[in-house]
Formats: sequence, C-alpha cells, structure tokens
Amino acid sequence: MTTAVAVLSPADLLSHWQGLRRLTRKVIEAYPEDQLHTFSVGGMRPFAALAAEMLGIAVPMVKEIVTGAASAYSEATAASKAELLAQWDAATAELDTWFAQIPADKFGETVTLFGQYTGPVWSQLFYAIDNENHHRAQGYVYLRALGIEPPPFWDRG
Amino acid sequence: MTTAVAVLSPADLLSHWQGLRRLTRKVIEAYPEDQLHTFSVGGMRPFAALAAEMLGIAVPMVKEIVTGAASAYSEATAASKAELLAQWDAATAELDTWFAQIPADKFGETVTLFGQYTGPVWSQLFYAIDNENHHRAQGYVYLRALGIEPPPFWDRG
Repeated sequence: MTTAVAVLSPADLLSHWQGLRRLTRKVIEAYPEDQLHTFSVGGMRPFAALAAEMLGIAVPMVKEIVTGAASAYSEATAASKAELLAQWDAATAELDTWFAQIPADKFGETVTLFGQYTGPVWSQLFYAIDNENHHRAQGYVYLRALGIEPPPFWDRG
Repeated sequence: MTTAVAVLSPADLLSHWQGLRRLTRKVIEAYPEDQLHTFSVGGMRPFAALAAEMLGIAVPMVKEIVTGAASAYSEATAASKAELLAQWDAATAELDTWFAQIPADKFGETVTLFGQYTGPVWSQLFYAIDNENHHRAQGYVYLRALGIEPPPFWDRG
C-alpha cells in the first residue's frame, strides 16, 4: 500500500513504546518490594497487578496480530520484584521480535483480538500504549503516597 | 512524501486524541466542584492544575506546529468546574481546526516547540497525548480516593 502521508513509521511506534516501557520499568524498580503486591489507594489494584495487566496485553497482542492465532487474555503472576523485572525484560525482547513481523499493510486492517476487542491494528496498539500510560501513572500516585519520588515522566533512557 | 507504510493517518491520530480528550472531560465532570482545585494525594497537584497543563499543551502545541510562531508555555486558570469545562470545549474545537492544517509532510520534521522541546512533530504530539493519559490517570486515583467511580477507561463516546 502507498499513501501520501505517514504520521510515523512502524519502527518509530515501536521505539516510542519501548521508551515508555523503559519508564514503566523504572517505576517497578522504584517500588519497595514489600509494597508492590499490597499497597494501593482508594481500593484500586496494587501496582504488581497493574504491571501484570500490561504484560498480559503487550506481547500477546502483537503476537496475535502477527500470527492471527486467537488467544484468551491472561495474566502471569510474579512472586517478587526481581521476577516481575525479569518478566518485563523478557517481554521487551519478545516485543521487538514480534512487532518487527507486523506486515506493512496490516496496521489499517480491522482485527478482533483476545476473542473480543475489534478495531484497526493501529488502534489496538494505541490502546495497549494508552493503557500502560494510564496504569503507570497510577503507580506514580502510589509512589508519591508512599513518600517516594517517581522517575521523571520525560525520562525514557 | 510517499511511503510504503502508514501506521495511521493524521485524521486517525486526531480522532484518537479527541476520543481520549472526551474521556478526560468525563473525569473533570465527575469531579466534585469543591475538590477540583484542592484535593490531591501524596502532595501532588490537584486535578484542576493537571487539566490546566493539558490545556496549556494541546492547542498551543498544534498551533505552533502549524504557524511556526514560537510561544512560551503558559497555563490558564479556571475559577470553577464550569469554566474549566468551557475552556476544554473551546480547545476541542480549536484542536480540530489547527490539527487539520498540519501539512502532510510535516509529521516527520524535527521542530523545537515552546522554545525548548526538540523532536519530530509526531513525537511532540505523542508526548502531549501520553502526558494527558498520565495526568488523567492520576485524576482517576484522586476520584477513587474520594470514593467516586471514574468513567471506564475504554469509554471514549
């Protein structure tokens, strides 16, 4: 497919997402081990559960976009901060591998993922990124409530 | 410019952003008038200040992308929830008008905005959207801490 306008390339989108994922990793790192699975504000889920949701979406979504093989949404549990960070790093590598395999003409195609969410591929990817921003930001509030300074929002290094 | 790949069109990006902005508007609406300028968690800014930041970025950024006229970052203050909602709605219309004037070949161009932030136009727009997701999500935690159910994250209508 050819078009007169490109907002950004697939490689740009992946790079942007991985930058945001590095920021999320810093939030996990900033968390005290003993609060990761327990602390919350206003009855919300603790940050370990929010991070598990991000992991449950990112790689499985992109893998399904590439393979077309339907999968049910599921979350892995991490018993410790070290285990969660290890899962995060494994997902970082897998995301690079799978994202690069999305065919160039696939981004505008409408697909149903996780057996229930229907929309263009680009919007599914944006949902994953927006949702990660949403839940990471909740982790920022939890950290502040714990008296811990979160990483600067602009720090993607 | 022609390219073999388009992740999404400029119109898609605007539509996506406006959907997210409708969600942010719902969060403003859900806020109790007497907490909007005062309530916070962990010493963070109250939600009125976070919304003022979003307003200080969105239209001024896109206007500067279109006109090339440098502007300093500034925030308007809203005395009441009604005034904030009126500012939000005015910005919604202005964003539509200005965004449609971004030249097709501009998205990959590197620009400096607000006198200090340098990067491709697409990444500047993504920063604005990511930042809105980030601060809206903090409003979600504030609402939960106030015992108020926020709008569902997927509700962009």
